[in-house]
Amino acid sequence: MSGNSFGSIFKLTSFGESHGAAIGGIIEGCPAGLLLDFDFIQKELNRRKPGQSNLTTARKEDDTVEFLSGIFEGQTLGTPIGFIIRNKDQHSTDYTHLKEAYRPSHADFTYQQKYGLRDYRGGGRSSARETACRIVAGAIAKLFLNQRGVQIHAFVKQVGTLKLEKNFDDLDLNNTELNVVRCPDVDMAAQMISAIEAAKKSGDTLGGIIQCVALNVPVGLGEPVFDKLHAVLGHAMLSINATKGFEIGSGFNSANFKGSELNDGFVKTEDNKIATGSNNSGGVQGGISNGMPIYFNVAFKPVATIMQSQNTLDSAGNSVVLEGKGRHDPCVLPRAVPIVESMTAMVLMDFMLLARTNQL
Amino acid sequence: MSGNSFGSIFKLTSFGESHGAAIGGIIEGCPAGLLLDFDFIQKELNRRKPGQSNLTTARKEDDTVEFLSGIFEGQTLGTPIGFIIRNKDQHSTDYTHLKEAYRPSHADFTYQQKYGLRDYRGGGRSSARETACRIVAGAIAKLFLNQRGVQIHAFVKQVGTLKLEKNFDDLDLNNTELNVVRCPDVDMAAQMISAIEAAKKSGDTLGGIIQCVALNVPVGLGEPVFDKLHAVLGHAMLSINATKGFEIGSGFNSANFKGSELNDGFVKTEDNKIATGSNNSGGVQGGISNGMPIYFNVAFKPVATIMQSQNTLDSAGNSVVLEGKGRHDPCVLPRAVPIVESMTAMVLMDFMLLARTNQL
Amino acid sequence: MSGNSFGSIFKLTSFGESHGAAIGGIIEGCPAGLLLDFDFIQKELNRRKPGQSNLTTARKEDDTVEFLSGIFEGQTLGTPIGFIIRNKDQHSTDYTHLKEAYRPSHADFTYQQKYGLRDYRGGGRSSARETACRIVAGAIAKLFLNQRGVQIHAFVKQVGTLKLEKNFDDLDLNNTELNVVRCPDVDMAAQMISAIEAAKKSGDTLGGIIQCVALNVPVGLGEPVFDKLHAVLGHAMLSINATKGFEIGSGFNSANFKGSELNDGFVKTEDNKIATGSNNSGGVQGGISNGMPIYFNVAFKPVATIMQSQNTLDSAGNSVVLEGKGRHDPCVLPRAVPIVESMTAMVLMDFMLLARTNQL
Amino acid sequence: MSGNSFGSIFKLTSFGESHGAAIGGIIEGCPAGLLLDFDFIQKELNRRKPGQSNLTTARKEDDTVEFLSGIFEGQTLGTPIGFIIRNKDQHSTDYTHLKEAYRPSHADFTYQQKYGLRDYRGGGRSSARETACRIVAGAIAKLFLNQRGVQIHAFVKQVGTLKLEKNFDDLDLNNTELNVVRCPDVDMAAQMISAIEAAKKSGDTLGGIIQCVALNVPVGLGEPVFDKLHAVLGHAMLSINATKGFEIGSGFNSANFKGSELNDGFVKTEDNKIATGSNNSGGVQGGISNGMPIYFNVAFKPVATIMQSQNTLDSAGNSVVLEGKGRHDPCVLPRAVPIVESMTAMVLMDFMLLARTNQL
Repeated sequence: MSGNSFGSIFKLTSFGESHGAAIGGIIEGCPAGLLLDFDFIQKELNRRKPGQSNLTTARKEDDTVEFLSGIFEGQTLGTPIGFIIRNKDQHSTDYTHLKEAYRPSHADFTYQQKYGLRDYRGGGRSSARETACRIVAGAIAKLFLNQRGVQIHAFVKQVGTLKLEKNFDDLDLNNTELNVVRCPDVDMAAQMISAIEAAKKSGDTLGGIIQCVALNVPVGLGEPVFDKLHAVLGHAMLSINATKGFEIGSGFNSANFKGSELNDGFVKTEDNKIATGSNNSGGVQGGISNGMPIYFNVAFKPVATIMQSQNTLDSAGNSVVLEGKGRHDPCVLPRAVPIVESMTAMVLMDFMLLARTNQL
Repeated sequence: MSGNSFGSIFKLTSFGESHGAAIGGIIEGCPAGLLLDFDFIQKELNRRKPGQSNLTTARKEDDTVEFLSGIFEGQTLGTPIGFIIRNKDQHSTDYTHLKEAYRPSHADFTYQQKYGLRDYRGGGRSSARETACRIVAGAIAKLFLNQRGVQIHAFVKQVGTLKLEKNFDDLDLNNTELNVVRCPDVDMAAQMISAIEAAKKSGDTLGGIIQCVALNVPVGLGEPVFDKLHAVLGHAMLSINATKGFEIGSGFNSANFKGSELNDGFVKTEDNKIATGSNNSGGVQGGISNGMPIYFNVAFKPVATIMQSQNTLDSAGNSVVLEGKGRHDPCVLPRAVPIVESMTAMVLMDFMLLARTNQL
Repeated sequence: MSGNSFGSIFKLTSFGESHGAAIGGIIEGCPAGLLLDFDFIQKELNRRKPGQSNLTTARKEDDTVEFLSGIFEGQTLGTPIGFIIRNKDQHSTDYTHLKEAYRPSHADFTYQQKYGLRDYRGGGRSSARETACRIVAGAIAKLFLNQRGVQIHAFVKQVGTLKLEKNFDDLDLNNTELNVVRCPDVDMAAQMISAIEAAKKSGDTLGGIIQCVALNVPVGLGEPVFDKLHAVLGHAMLSINATKGFEIGSGFNSANFKGSELNDGFVKTEDNKIATGSNNSGGVQGGISNGMPIYFNVAFKPVATIMQSQNTLDSAGNSVVLEGKGRHDPCVLPRAVPIVESMTAMVLMDFMLLARTNQL
Repeated sequence: MSGNSFGSIFKLTSFGESHGAAIGGIIEGCPAGLLLDFDFIQKELNRRKPGQSNLTTARKEDDTVEFLSGIFEGQTLGTPIGFIIRNKDQHSTDYTHLKEAYRPSHADFTYQQKYGLRDYRGGGRSSARETACRIVAGAIAKLFLNQRGVQIHAFVKQVGTLKLEKNFDDLDLNNTELNVVRCPDVDMAAQMISAIEAAKKSGDTLGGIIQCVALNVPVGLGEPVFDKLHAVLGHAMLSINATKGFEIGSGFNSANFKGSELNDGFVKTEDNKIATGSNNSGGVQGGISNGMPIYFNVAFKPVATIMQSQNTLDSAGNSVVLEGKGRHDPCVLPRAVPIVESMTAMVLMDFMLLARTNQL
């Protein structure tokens, strides 16, 4: 529980502050012999990077990853993969006025109290800039999973009060990347974009929900008691900045149904495999994957930094009025889609490696 | 990620199948010198134990814990606390008809596939009987926390479609234990009890939501990136049997508000301390406790075992009709209240110990 | 680094004080489907148990292990294996005179300072009684290893100044169990027995060296940098009570040779496999097993408890004269042989499981 | 047991191959507020770096560390400290002839078998170049320890058959840095230097022994059972390249004495503190520090790369004659002195942080 590592066998340890020299990480436990597609990794980073559309912060970062170790002639060596991403477009002076102020719903106060000092520039370690490292590890995990037929699709299901009410199997998830808000439904996407633009114009921000679906996940992933598959997925999702909730399968809606309505009975598929007739379990039973699609929702609060004045305190306990400054996202959900996918990929790959030790 | 351990410094490792000789565990990292109140520990176990009311399974278990080590003259030694709880009232033959069947929404199929064999009696390791071990560790954590003024209250907020819409600070949480359903609102409690009795009569089951509140939590608990306080709390809650969702503070409802509406500005309290005016953050900012009340919801699905016939498959792939047998809970939420509290206590104590290393 | 767990995938967590109700442990990560030979496990415990010969303490313990979980119809379930061994023949009053005294070269002083209190009866947690738990885990690991052809033989190589100068491949290691001192050379064994009896008679104690040999170990075990195979073996051995040193292959003697003399060149074996001509590496190169026999030495100091009077201090800082009392071993090496083997088996099994994740 | 991390609270995770772009690491768990002396850190790196004298390899590396995170205005933030050290003077083509050959007593064969591929240039991950990362972490740990009065001195005690027979308290350990071989005895240092020069001239290599002494270590460090202080120190030392043995206090020599001769009785010091009269325990009793000087020996084999022709096999199983090429150390001990100190510092700091949780 060091706080900077995630995973058991396949493990990412990350470092870096938003306005330091670089962020980066070490990926351990990637089996040797995996052919890395560097274009794919960079494309994944581009899906998260700032400045990709007018819905995101204007901070310009190439987010070019430099791999320093663990790779030889394009293949993983089995040794740790060290990598860095240089910070380039820091406007650190934008934050001087925040040196002593505790921004509402930010980590300024809690970091200051926990550590006795903090890097106030751009949120320091609490900045979502750190999540670029997760994209790198997640992209490598996806390469591993893709070889094995596992597919992961996340998409924006809700922005503000605009909610896509369709089931994921009624959507073409390949459409997700066709619009800047990453919602696979064209009409809803257009509405969401308008809503975010309107919020931006008023100096405000929106939250929402991302749904993630994992297909062709092998049966048997997850550990029985404390590390149930959905518990670790929940941990992974709730470790992403601005998240407030996680639910799998029937989720919070489960309370509205009876056992007789919600139970997933087993049936034979056309190709004679074992499946469940319904999938309220969300692909996980007793904490272990059952081969059905895994799907879950992640709730994000609106971005805390708004372009409006707010009342708060400074470190001396004086009231201050904060004016919104700097470059920020009016809604993080579009950029969070690849982060959700990456964390999902890391969890699934880790459990697939761990599952190799389940039987003699 | 072994699956049987939880915690970093203060750590529980548990063992045991539902119908084996015993369940038990080892608690590591409890500081030396903690005076144990054995009556309190047993009372906590009694809050979870089966047969405590007509809303629960009729299985009779004393759930008497036997401590085997780590304690000397009533105080913790700093060495591991080993303990066992004997299984007594197993009706293992009740399960013979399930030897080959895959019960809907149970772990039979996933365990069989993961391990190649399973203990089919009473769910084996996947049984919620294991959670008694968490109560033991949680009770010890509560003793530690109580010494330091930290209080944890969980209660049943929703059963089926019956939802208590009041905020926790409008409730007298000390009333929770006054009724068998563990809802602090007397009227709502009566309705919930009726609903559970009705479900039981029809051979069906109900789910619901538990809310948990932690008061007087010190500022600075939680680790910045992957082990944010709410991520670890989410992990803890989602590791409890039958859980499908977790949300903290404004949770899934966050999407319906703008940043300007949801942000928690800092204010001075009457006794000149720093607090937030509102508490949509749920006591956690940037993954770290800010001293405000921590509150979160946990969603439970209805119990999978129902007293109705269900269609499913056996291990040979043949269709079978399952008849409900054995002794089961029509609704687990009342018994899950102390489990939620215990996992919360374990998380908070662990982070309090870890926080001792944050500064020079 | 909790101090009570050993291993990564295959992991033992132990608990228990010498004069408490019981010692025991939890074994995690044993693959499902391993057929357990309970007679074998008990025989291994008997090799360590007190009272087995006149060379050991007279404390009478059956050391009967009770398995509580993780096993079904004789096979491992993949779930944690909980077990306890009751303490029976405690003579706790033998230790009342030690309540305040700090015995020379014991852990009384360090435990008291570290924890602020201690269980002074029989050494509490610092007693070698804890090692019985290692035997249980080690015996299970041996069953796993034996299925795969891996063999582990430890034997007493030195007692006091009596040192067996032969190489292990010039000895019949199957003779080890033929005498009470566990030295495979009959003549040397007789001398060692006499030496121990003489020490016992004079109220004194002897140390010595145990050598351990592992045969047919697969190539590729051990992790490159910090968890080199010999580093983890060293850790394992130095965690056994009374050990003062560890050396592998040419060990401390390496300093007396040049690189040209010590290097192990690769050669082809008669059956066309790759081996090394010499084996100064002790079967480990770059921290990873190379398929050659692994052999290492473990140094034990003489038992600290002697039947002579000794000067020391009590907790108030007063000088006291301690008289030897209680039942103790004049030389622990014979009983330590199965402990050394058990820790070796645990390390090898753990690395064999971990190695399943090295390649795609 | 990932193999790339060391430590529990204060933890180093390292990455990097000898001839890759860079080596580096992440240091977690350093408390916030530690003032870093960057000159000191670089000086420590210089003590290890190649080319510092004619006794070492001629490879020229500045070994300049670039810190990327975790530091703000010269102080640690409590967040992970990421750092890299660029590789500059790689002569990778020197190794082309080794692409298929298995060098005697190197890790070529074991890596190839373990991972199915390897970076053959300069030993890849198995190169001791990785130890530069340990110096960085160790230097930071020393800064923490120095603030608290803990001092660590390692020195070369033996080179080839030349052994310094004096006790560490009969030496002035401040003299260690006065000569290139890092032996505090001037006469012995001169002999050792001559011996290494002679070995170098003949294309051969020498091993030896380093002794390390830690003074003013607080009482109570180390965990009771598996993570005894000397077990973790042993693990740390045996993880250093080319090590073959570890012994603490009376070590392997313990076998030559009786309990009555070796026991360390407690006495009062002049300033009324509790100490032991003798220190055969080496400062550790029951696995926990007792406040006396900690001292231990580490055995190093001669460097495996010699400038003489050697017979071995290639990956196809053909016999090949290897000619020594490249730039190598005739004796690694002088450069290993700061590595031994660094690993010791890391262990002690980690246990000091962990010890904060021992009592209420």
